[in-house]
Amino acid sequence: VITELTLRLHPIPDHIVVARAAFPSVEAACRAAAAIIGAGVLVTRCELLDATTIAALNAYAGTSFPVSPYLFVEFGGTEAGVAGDLVATRELAEDEGASAFESESDPTARAQMWSARHNALHASLALAPGSKAMTTDVAVPVSELAAAIEQARRALDESGLRGGIVGHVGDGNFHVAFLLDPDDAESIAKADALNERVVDDALARGGTCTGEHGIGFGKLRYLEREHGDLVELYRGVKRVFDPNGIMNPGKAVP
Amino acid sequence: VITELTLRLHPIPDHIVVARAAFPSVEAACRAAAAIIGAGVLVTRCELLDATTIAALNAYAGTSFPVSPYLFVEFGGTEAGVAGDLVATRELAEDEGASAFESESDPTARAQMWSARHNALHASLALAPGSKAMTTDVAVPVSELAAAIEQARRALDESGLRGGIVGHVGDGNFHVAFLLDPDDAESIAKADALNERVVDDALARGGTCTGEHGIGFGKLRYLEREHGDLVELYRGVKRVFDPNGIMNPGKAVP
Repeated sequence: VITELTLRLHPIPDHIVVARAAFPSVEAACRAAAAIIGAGVLVTRCELLDATTIAALNAYAGTSFPVSPYLFVEFGGTEAGVAGDLVATRELAEDEGASAFESESDPTARAQMWSARHNALHASLALAPGSKAMTTDVAVPVSELAAAIEQARRALDESGLRGGIVGHVGDGNFHVAFLLDPDDAESIAKADALNERVVDDALARGGTCTGEHGIGFGKLRYLEREHGDLVELYRGVKRVFDPNGIMNPGKAVP
Repeated sequence: VITELTLRLHPIPDHIVVARAAFPSVEAACRAAAAIIGAGVLVTRCELLDATTIAALNAYAGTSFPVSPYLFVEFGGTEAGVAGDLVATRELAEDEGASAFESESDPTARAQMWSARHNALHASLALAPGSKAMTTDVAVPVSELAAAIEQARRALDESGLRGGIVGHVGDGNFHVAFLLDPDDAESIAKADALNERVVDDALARGGTCTGEHGIGFGKLRYLEREHGDLVELYRGVKRVFDPNGIMNPGKAVP
């Protein structure tokens, strides 16, 4: 029950540019993202797609992206400011070996560029028709991001499941999406084990078991692993606001 | 006792510009600030000084600013981006009647420009040698800011105390600094009444009794005025973390 909500609004910039490019490695793409944000470009979206996801997109949507990690970046500001930021963004990306650099400022062309990112889940599902996707999200310090994604990719490959990785790399948050057959206990067990491996690696890097999807039921046991004896304090706060335990019972706080 | 601290760092932009200008009214300065931020300029500082503060600065530091409200703005980004943002900032300021527009990007010249703002409190104190300054801070929704500052200025003038107003206007936070004689009960009573008038006006506008200085002891009674029956929940949360009441006892939560 939400009875009142105060929002802090961020302005919609006068001018917006979307840029995307292929990178030789996940690490190079993550370094470029950090450099662009670090240079003071007003980045509003920053999305990484791994090579598997790009290959799935090419198969699903008939695109012909080079099959390598891709970075999509959006930034806004004044007209002249954005033009300058675009030059800097391209230079910083190419310093990390970017190729196939493209950019658009027209709203329709921008939406067209983003559609590849928006199709990523559907494209991954099409890798194994009839399967369902399970997504786990974690976040790690930005300095650990490239290594965490490489490790998650290894875990995915070793799990025997198919899937791709996409990341909101500006804040160290990434999603591992993998396909499973919900009627096959072995497939579910593999997915649970993979989820646990990705979460444990994120925690070992000083990250968190969920970047934005939340604890819900699915990650209840990881909350204690991540926060230890703080969880008793969380329970105390929950009791202050919900003494009868009627608000989302059993979720978020074990 | 702080045992662990996680910081989210924002990058230091490659290029930084400071701009300042005189405005015909507090309202015009507030509108210009909102327009500059709204255009997507990456504003990192945005400070308003009222005409009284400017006059005090001229007397204190031998400057010759036109005696009117002043806006100081700092923003950063890539070199070309900042150059573009400076053009837009000047246009938006002049749309609101700005005059005496100046800007600097050299670090020493920037520090020189900011020194006027940093001298504001000393300059105000010099209006009545031997007096002490009391500062109250409040914050209101940005849409209410100009009216709140005008109202605070009126309250200050009617209080019989001398003082000036400066504002971190990008987020609706402003400070009213007024001079009093700590050995004179009447002077203290005037200051308390003025503080209460400024706070009540901020609350009536949907604002908060303190934007950044905190509740401490001085604003304990305003917390209940602002938050009503939520304060009992704050007490509950405090008890969860501090069952023995040894952490900052009696402060922040009445």
